[in-house]
Amino acid sequence: MTERISSVETLDVRFPTSLHRDGSDAMNPFPDYSAAYVVLRTTSGAEGHGLVFTVGRGTEIAVAAMRSLAGMVVGQSVEELLADPGALARRLTGDSQIRWLGPEKGVVHMAAGGLVNAVWDLAARRAGKPLWKLLAGLTPEQLVAQIDFRYLRDALTEDEALALLRGAAGGRADRERMLLERGYPAYTTTPGWLGYDDEKLARLCRESVDAGYELIKLKVGGNLADDVRRLGIARQAVGPKIRIAVDANQIWGVPDAIGWMRELSSFDPYWIEEPTSPDDVLGHAAVRRAVAPVKVATGEHCQNAVMFKQLLQADAIDVVQIDACRVAGVNENLAILLLAQKFGVPVCPHAGGVGLCELVQHLAMFDFVAVSGSTEDRAIEYVDHLHEHFVDPVRISGGRYLAPTTPGMSAQIVPASLAAFRFPDGPEWAAADDQPLTTVA
Amino acid sequence: MTERISSVETLDVRFPTSLHRDGSDAMNPFPDYSAAYVVLRTTSGAEGHGLVFTVGRGTEIAVAAMRSLAGMVVGQSVEELLADPGALARRLTGDSQIRWLGPEKGVVHMAAGGLVNAVWDLAARRAGKPLWKLLAGLTPEQLVAQIDFRYLRDALTEDEALALLRGAAGGRADRERMLLERGYPAYTTTPGWLGYDDEKLARLCRESVDAGYELIKLKVGGNLADDVRRLGIARQAVGPKIRIAVDANQIWGVPDAIGWMRELSSFDPYWIEEPTSPDDVLGHAAVRRAVAPVKVATGEHCQNAVMFKQLLQADAIDVVQIDACRVAGVNENLAILLLAQKFGVPVCPHAGGVGLCELVQHLAMFDFVAVSGSTEDRAIEYVDHLHEHFVDPVRISGGRYLAPTTPGMSAQIVPASLAAFRFPDGPEWAAADDQPLTTVA
Repeated sequence: MTERISSVETLDVRFPTSLHRDGSDAMNPFPDYSAAYVVLRTTSGAEGHGLVFTVGRGTEIAVAAMRSLAGMVVGQSVEELLADPGALARRLTGDSQIRWLGPEKGVVHMAAGGLVNAVWDLAARRAGKPLWKLLAGLTPEQLVAQIDFRYLRDALTEDEALALLRGAAGGRADRERMLLERGYPAYTTTPGWLGYDDEKLARLCRESVDAGYELIKLKVGGNLADDVRRLGIARQAVGPKIRIAVDANQIWGVPDAIGWMRELSSFDPYWIEEPTSPDDVLGHAAVRRAVAPVKVATGEHCQNAVMFKQLLQADAIDVVQIDACRVAGVNENLAILLLAQKFGVPVCPHAGGVGLCELVQHLAMFDFVAVSGSTEDRAIEYVDHLHEHFVDPVRISGGRYLAPTTPGMSAQIVPASLAAFRFPDGPEWAAADDQPLTTVA
Repeated sequence: MTERISSVETLDVRFPTSLHRDGSDAMNPFPDYSAAYVVLRTTSGAEGHGLVFTVGRGTEIAVAAMRSLAGMVVGQSVEELLADPGALARRLTGDSQIRWLGPEKGVVHMAAGGLVNAVWDLAARRAGKPLWKLLAGLTPEQLVAQIDFRYLRDALTEDEALALLRGAAGGRADRERMLLERGYPAYTTTPGWLGYDDEKLARLCRESVDAGYELIKLKVGGNLADDVRRLGIARQAVGPKIRIAVDANQIWGVPDAIGWMRELSSFDPYWIEEPTSPDDVLGHAAVRRAVAPVKVATGEHCQNAVMFKQLLQADAIDVVQIDACRVAGVNENLAILLLAQKFGVPVCPHAGGVGLCELVQHLAMFDFVAVSGSTEDRAIEYVDHLHEHFVDPVRISGGRYLAPTTPGMSAQIVPASLAAFRFPDGPEWAAADDQPLTTVA
């Protein structure tokens, strides 16, 4: 009998991180790191796990979107799905009625990504490989066939993508060995949340350097005097050689971004992240021209490959920050990695939250082995929150991500955590004395 | 006692338009015009109606989003809401947790727009005026205060917006009288759906000219030979003086758009609408440079004012096609109208579907009276579908929209239609012998 997807289970899981202001920034003062979580099950009892990262309220909308899309997955032949996850990605993002709600953006697109990633997780488990290794073992032709080039060909054609991948074929085995031995560089945002006091900031900065990080990141944009003070504390704590990136989380308009960054320039910030609306390609380009040599980084809220394409075409960014859960899954991220390589812009993935580190490490490591062939000026964001809830959590050593070796995409949350933090009826929520801000004020 | 919003009722209403291929285009072969419908009720028994237009599957996600946002509306003081709908718009689009799902795009943004528009409907009913007249009676200062300029100031500042509105103050009364006497120009898409045969196309083209339309629109992008034949039929039917716009509904990448439009240029198309991804500002600019003097139009899928800002900054479009239900309601459309005026680009609103004509006419008429002061090269799209379901349907005469005079935003669907077409349990759905394609294939 043909093995088929027998069920798509969806769950709303929320962690009350707002209680301690972990993850607090200028636009997200009180996030409750959450996930619209999905489990595909097959008629043979196999599973694929995926998640859409969210920050609390609204997770129920992402779950609703995933449920609406689930009808396109249930009953499908597993062999056909795993042979071509790109076909599913195109069906999910191209459905002629549902695409009215996007197209290719927002909740519906994120939900599609959760399902597509769950299929890749299943594929990698089935292959007995971590996802990065499964991807790195595909041929250039197989990889290119996984990408929807409809709106990309003015910047990257199929032939150009093939040439990039073939050009990176030499040395793959060496790089895979290096990756397994030494891991992939990380940078850390742990010290820099806006909600932390100065003492905690200084202590965490020092601890980051001691732990081997060469790049740390501070949130900015709440109050200029505070930012000047905090950057001064951080610079003093880490010394002149450690890179300090700053992140405004979209708080500014273009003129504000330029003015504010001029005030911070004496602290030698390495990049300014999300200086303005993630939709503002031309705005990012204007900020970049004005704040150079400070770099401009963005991507965690970049809705799809069409936007990344334009950020690259417009010379608007110096750093491409892919996110594992924002776009329509692995397939669209393959396109974005290839676009970045075409334009010669390094990829430093966005992570943190819950599960983002676990998922996105696979994409960065694939990029190193099979696309860019380099870790220079590249690092995956790292935040030490909530990894204990994962079956295959990231492993960090000496400021580097060690390569995962367990089959899959590392997306699985341990069953006890799913049960405890299920919203709103899990015991961690139902019993909480000190309710975080998950209901609308 | 303070009057408050006592309830927010949401409904999933779908019309089985796919049965007759009304509304069929290259990307939407079988739409079922639908609405995520909302009714605000106050403790005094007053009502405000709003809707988010959708095309079938996925309407339930828009309803879920509206339900999630409803908590920010229920219990609010009606006096405070009506005094400043912009404050509600900012709360809905700026909620620090929910904005992770956007920001300002997709389902959540559309749901915010449905709620904001319902508040404006309530405000206009309370004022005893059609919305266009309520808006046209606000002072420049009041209008500017309704707009969120955070991400717009590099293109339009508050002071510039004030100057534009003050500059249009002269002649307001004359234009209002002209509008009431003669209405506002319409163009029609009725003849041009891809699913119609040649005979129907020719007949509907002739009927459109006879009815007074000076601009008609044909869907293109399915098959080049078909497009050449259909444009030939249309051009022959209407003669050389009637403008024929064509609409590709995003089917092409940038090089395809340019090549295809060259093949159609001998039929003197007036504009090409949605030649590529609605997110591709730079792509639209490239198409525009290549296909001139054919104009480029877009907007029905333009997610927010930041994208319209860039389309204007990049000289990417000749026609701004606002949509009443895509962005966060009246307030964001005020910003877009002012941006268009600043850049000197005419606004030709997108309409059709269900309820889009009813809603958007108010914005175009306000634009004429209080912003642009002109109807030159401007027209509101008109399609003669589904108006019978509205309490205050649009009135068309001689190829023009007559100005609505009933208080409100004309968004209310008649209760019998809401009951009959409620999905999936309304009698029109439960009893249908010939089920349209609302379940996923």
